Amino acid sequence: MKYSIGIDYGTQSGRAVVVEIGTGNILAQSVKDYTHGVMDEYLPDGITKLGHDWALEHPADYIEVLETAVPEVLKKSGVSPLDIIGVGIDFTACTLIAVDSEGTPLCFKDEFKSNPHAYIKLWKHHAAQKQANRLNEIAKSRGEDFLRRYGGKISSEWMMPKIMQTLEEDKSVFDAADRFMESADWVVMQLTGNERRNSCTAGYKATWHKKKGYPSKDFFKALAPELENIVEDKLSKDIYSLGTKAGELTAEAAGLTGLPEGTAVAVANVDAHVSMPAVGITRAGQMLMIMGTSTCHMVLGEDEKIVSGMCGVVEDGIMPGYLGYEAGQSCVGDHFKWFVENCVPASYINDAKSQNISIHELLRNKASILRPGQSGLVALDWWNGNRSILVDADLTGIIIGMTLLTKPEEIYRALIEATAYGTRMIIETFRNSGVAIDSLYAAGGIAEKDPMMMQIYADVTGMEIKIAKSDQSPALGSAMFGAVAAGASKGGYDTIFEAAAEMGGVKNRTYAPVSENSELYNKLYEEYAILHDYFGRGTNDVMKRLKEIKKQ
Amino acid sequence: MKYSIGIDYGTQSGRAVVVEIGTGNILAQSVKDYTHGVMDEYLPDGITKLGHDWALEHPADYIEVLETAVPEVLKKSGVSPLDIIGVGIDFTACTLIAVDSEGTPLCFKDEFKSNPHAYIKLWKHHAAQKQANRLNEIAKSRGEDFLRRYGGKISSEWMMPKIMQTLEEDKSVFDAADRFMESADWVVMQLTGNERRNSCTAGYKATWHKKKGYPSKDFFKALAPELENIVEDKLSKDIYSLGTKAGELTAEAAGLTGLPEGTAVAVANVDAHVSMPAVGITRAGQMLMIMGTSTCHMVLGEDEKIVSGMCGVVEDGIMPGYLGYEAGQSCVGDHFKWFVENCVPASYINDAKSQNISIHELLRNKASILRPGQSGLVALDWWNGNRSILVDADLTGIIIGMTLLTKPEEIYRALIEATAYGTRMIIETFRNSGVAIDSLYAAGGIAEKDPMMMQIYADVTGMEIKIAKSDQSPALGSAMFGAVAAGASKGGYDTIFEAAAEMGGVKNRTYAPVSENSELYNKLYEEYAILHDYFGRGTNDVMKRLKEIKKQ
Repeated sequence: MKYSIGIDYGTQSGRAVVVEIGTGNILAQSVKDYTHGVMDEYLPDGITKLGHDWALEHPADYIEVLETAVPEVLKKSGVSPLDIIGVGIDFTACTLIAVDSEGTPLCFKDEFKSNPHAYIKLWKHHAAQKQANRLNEIAKSRGEDFLRRYGGKISSEWMMPKIMQTLEEDKSVFDAADRFMESADWVVMQLTGNERRNSCTAGYKATWHKKKGYPSKDFFKALAPELENIVEDKLSKDIYSLGTKAGELTAEAAGLTGLPEGTAVAVANVDAHVSMPAVGITRAGQMLMIMGTSTCHMVLGEDEKIVSGMCGVVEDGIMPGYLGYEAGQSCVGDHFKWFVENCVPASYINDAKSQNISIHELLRNKASILRPGQSGLVALDWWNGNRSILVDADLTGIIIGMTLLTKPEEIYRALIEATAYGTRMIIETFRNSGVAIDSLYAAGGIAEKDPMMMQIYADVTGMEIKIAKSDQSPALGSAMFGAVAAGASKGGYDTIFEAAAEMGGVKNRTYAPVSENSELYNKLYEEYAILHDYFGRGTNDVMKRLKEIKKQ
Repeated sequence: MKYSIGIDYGTQSGRAVVVEIGTGNILAQSVKDYTHGVMDEYLPDGITKLGHDWALEHPADYIEVLETAVPEVLKKSGVSPLDIIGVGIDFTACTLIAVDSEGTPLCFKDEFKSNPHAYIKLWKHHAAQKQANRLNEIAKSRGEDFLRRYGGKISSEWMMPKIMQTLEEDKSVFDAADRFMESADWVVMQLTGNERRNSCTAGYKATWHKKKGYPSKDFFKALAPELENIVEDKLSKDIYSLGTKAGELTAEAAGLTGLPEGTAVAVANVDAHVSMPAVGITRAGQMLMIMGTSTCHMVLGEDEKIVSGMCGVVEDGIMPGYLGYEAGQSCVGDHFKWFVENCVPASYINDAKSQNISIHELLRNKASILRPGQSGLVALDWWNGNRSILVDADLTGIIIGMTLLTKPEEIYRALIEATAYGTRMIIETFRNSGVAIDSLYAAGGIAEKDPMMMQIYADVTGMEIKIAKSDQSPALGSAMFGAVAAGASKGGYDTIFEAAAEMGGVKNRTYAPVSENSELYNKLYEEYAILHDYFGRGTNDVMKRLKEIKKQ
């Protein structure tokens, strides 16, 4: 029996798993919390203060995951290192690192260790919003075609705004940076000695296109003269499709991890996208929702279509040979957290305590006996703006239909329903744009833990929902890509599709729509759609005007 | 020094006060809770169950107020009964009683004592909604002009629907009733032996018009053949203006109350309307808001104008010689009660406890430091429908502008602001219809106790708000009408205007609009008005459709 290792680099920790080839069974897992965590107030020197909206990480923490979690999970699993045939990793993105010509992070150097720009700008570093706004304005005024592949807007979380911020705020770091890399690719480089940038982050976070490449030099020059040759100078045109091998473990990396030198390593991946094969997705039309604090929707397609408000479409971006489509909802789990923290009366908290259950469970118990429409409420799920399909961070939340008899659990359920309507809006928009969606999968904390919510999603979308078999889909998916990097000749697979078919999959329990509920939800969704367009497409820009007044 | 007695018949109790003529100082007060309270489940027999939405009272309880509260308040005040020159009463309305030819309530008779229809249908008896709906349909289809004086709709709380319900559900009571009366007029009859129906309840609750009288016999016949001659048979065409004398205390009533036989008694009044002279209102253009669980707005005018969505316009309905206009908001204090019971987190309750203040006070403390517009929220105050100016019970509440940072106190303040916008909408509608409003007065629990809310009302309306000097405005107003019934020759007044000028008034502290706040609220009110019309005037009837779905 052969095994592979998947390493999932999250926001707060890295998780390594040992997975059995052929079955996808996870034998063991090990988690290493990042020593420095997310740095959003001070640098490790304890003196250098970070600005508002900054979020940095320390590259040493990623190396620590390799040298602690991997040996530990090997030991836990009882598997001989010789039976590990491949390694794959996935990462949050864009999580940007600046390195010198040796690949050494600038923050490792004495002259930069108190310089915030020399550290890793985490995906949720939001301090480059100004740069993102300028980039979008310039791209729009130039009629840059690439914008259409990203719902018309580049996020401040992505690569180019983060590089622009470095250039504008500390040119010494920009100049000293031989390369800007995704941390995902940098860790792969630490493992293999090879710089093999992956097609997923290049496509979704750096506006790379398989056929058209990056945006033009003229465009980059318009952003700043120093950026004209940014791709050649500090990025790379060599982009490797997901499912290819990045290289083999170097002697040094072997020493670090306890794995044999020469073990195959896959090009890196992103945590959401790598979950697609983990649930067994092998073809176009199967949409996966990763449901947590926010939701990420992904689906494969055979042609490149422009879908309004999608987060991105990237060839080879999820599975090789397919267009990978991504969309998202920016407020899902966060929504319920807000509600529980701000809107639940003391009597409910006491009831939950006396029943010895969580407040979420109490609310679910009360909400689950409500029938669709019984509350008379409809909400727009825009507490954190709208990512897809309106791509508008300035939209805000609405609840409509309250009476003096409205109960907290009714509002709670209405918020859940609102996120389900938001998902249906995304699905319908994809379909209307020619991207088929014929089946629905879910992974992530909510998919695992909230049957009521999953049933509501099934009823609202009118689609059966299958749930990821593992609660560690990203790490499992990474291990599968590790098995593909090794190849069939080594006991792995030649394609991720074969790996997905054997190692990926879903639980036996699925959520089928109840037709009676779906009929009611069809009516309610119509109301949602009317309000969505009225408030979201400019008929009544009250939300923006309220935000303007708020600023005063 | 001379004195008069005011008796305020509320929903749960009757309150008697002794008031000094000339100053309006209340020397003493005494409250008698109704022995039977509000009967909404069973009759006094303990067996006869009442239907949904029923609310009855027992006429014996009103007599008990006369025989306990009046002697008690006399004693407390230390005033000699011989120095009491007049008595006035006010009542909730329409609070309907059926009596025989002797004026004896039917429920006092053995054959009717287990018959719900023989008891008093309290103002908030809502079981005649079916009849009200039919009445409105018929009136509308016949193009009845009187509807325009009542915002286009007769309430199920008013007299004719309650009589129709009696007729339809128990003809024996209808037939046995020699007269249907307002309880207000019936109590005056107990005091004086005279049936002198007042112009306030006749106008606001029984569609009587000083010049046009009641609706036509044809109309009543269209409701039911038995109702063709309802006015002549069981009501009365003799309506007495507020400010006139109903008669003098009979020997029997003198024995009951401990007052001298022959003491002047005023025609009865309604609790809200009687507060107008109590705050010192003496002319057209001065609007009074009675602010409690709901708000009642009243203003005098010199001509009869049709204001859309008003509750009523009645000549002599508030002060003799003037048109009395009434409008209302159905959800004010109730709104905040709902919020506190359903939406305030445990941490706030704990904070209030540890600070030893009420949760309302804690919320006010937090909300009062917010600036207008700072929350980014706007709400429509329709948790209990909209009385004025849309007259639509099927409208429901909205909050708009929530983000993940929205705090409970921001929602609380937004609800308060919404009710203030609702009041401004009423004021502007009156003005646009030719009814001047040049100054603003407030009475009731909220006016007494909530300076933040009163300041918001001042800022939103852009008008200085004066607060009733007494927290017992209705009883004070009734005492003033008692003094008018006595007349100047007995040490009272010849007109209510003179009484109002001397005995009514406001506190020294007023609430003046802060121009900076008003400017911000002008912008926010614009948003309210757009949403008000969009959801309230048929552009998007989502609230009604949600209610329809809810019913399924």
